[in-house]
Amino acid sequence: MRVPVPLRRAYKLINHGPTTLITAAAGDRRNVMSAAWVMGIDYEPAKLIAVIAADTFTRGLIEASGEFVVNVPTVRMIDVVYAAGKVSGEVDDKFATFGLTTSPASIVGAPLVEGCAAWLECRVVPEPHMQESYDLFVADVVAAWADDASFVDGAWRFARDEDRTLHHLSGGVFVTSGEIVKAKS
Amino acid sequence: MRVPVPLRRAYKLINHGPTTLITAAAGDRRNVMSAAWVMGIDYEPAKLIAVIAADTFTRGLIEASGEFVVNVPTVRMIDVVYAAGKVSGEVDDKFATFGLTTSPASIVGAPLVEGCAAWLECRVVPEPHMQESYDLFVADVVAAWADDASFVDGAWRFARDEDRTLHHLSGGVFVTSGEIVKAKS
Repeated sequence: MRVPVPLRRAYKLINHGPTTLITAAAGDRRNVMSAAWVMGIDYEPAKLIAVIAADTFTRGLIEASGEFVVNVPTVRMIDVVYAAGKVSGEVDDKFATFGLTTSPASIVGAPLVEGCAAWLECRVVPEPHMQESYDLFVADVVAAWADDASFVDGAWRFARDEDRTLHHLSGGVFVTSGEIVKAKS
Repeated sequence: MRVPVPLRRAYKLINHGPTTLITAAAGDRRNVMSAAWVMGIDYEPAKLIAVIAADTFTRGLIEASGEFVVNVPTVRMIDVVYAAGKVSGEVDDKFATFGLTTSPASIVGAPLVEGCAAWLECRVVPEPHMQESYDLFVADVVAAWADDASFVDGAWRFARDEDRTLHHLSGGVFVTSGEIVKAKS
């Protein structure tokens, strides 16, 4: 079940470096793209950065709306994650093409992709130089959600193998989140 | 054995989101700190960004030298990775404290930490606004290395469980790089 995550804990949803699906919407258009280069950069207020290449359809939607959602997919979604990184959404509706079901987000206009393990609703912090020079978008996390089967009491548990997160190696090859290990304190 | 990685493939060494150890040196001082917030942002020329908090001793060394090394530790080093994130190097030599052996890097002055799975030698691209506003350092990767037991023919294999990379969840808790999975092409 999707449950809210306090914003001060939102960084934990992507701290282990999962590959993501970024959704965006503007006017009557929306899109989804794969993005491995997404990272938290602050705890409170929660901030992240994402590399959104200049030639993507999603980039235009984000620039128009100032919003996007970082969806954290599970290993069950591996084929969609790979395919969504290869096809542009300019012509076709990629949600329909890939059979993705969505729900409305709570604050932003971009949709949440059903079946993911976590979701971070984001509002862009305008940084023209970073966007133009490095394709880097800084964003405030304005709402966060997680599947309470995997993210329990503020921490990832990955109780089911099929709910593990994906971490992109290259091409169609990924590594899943593996064993949880603890350091001596 | 440590072998060179072509720069166009350097992004692959951190594309799956591992936690890192950042080393830096300036004058007669050097230091090592844990950093989970490190991410590739370009393929060729290879670039990455790292969040280096303003109150760290490492930050001063990086600002003075314009260089650092991103070391990618294995699960065997979990206790050092956790400890290196809690202790400042301002007073003591953390390499000695943690029993870390180092080797000289090929281009930069910061050392390579022995026992890691990969190493990226980095030269800072001056971006004062990003550094001051977000603690974000952009860097060119100027040399890259990997342990050829884990990174084979330009791809991670993780042949041995004890050589898996660490991905930080929070506090002393990490998840290891798990199973390698492939999407349908």
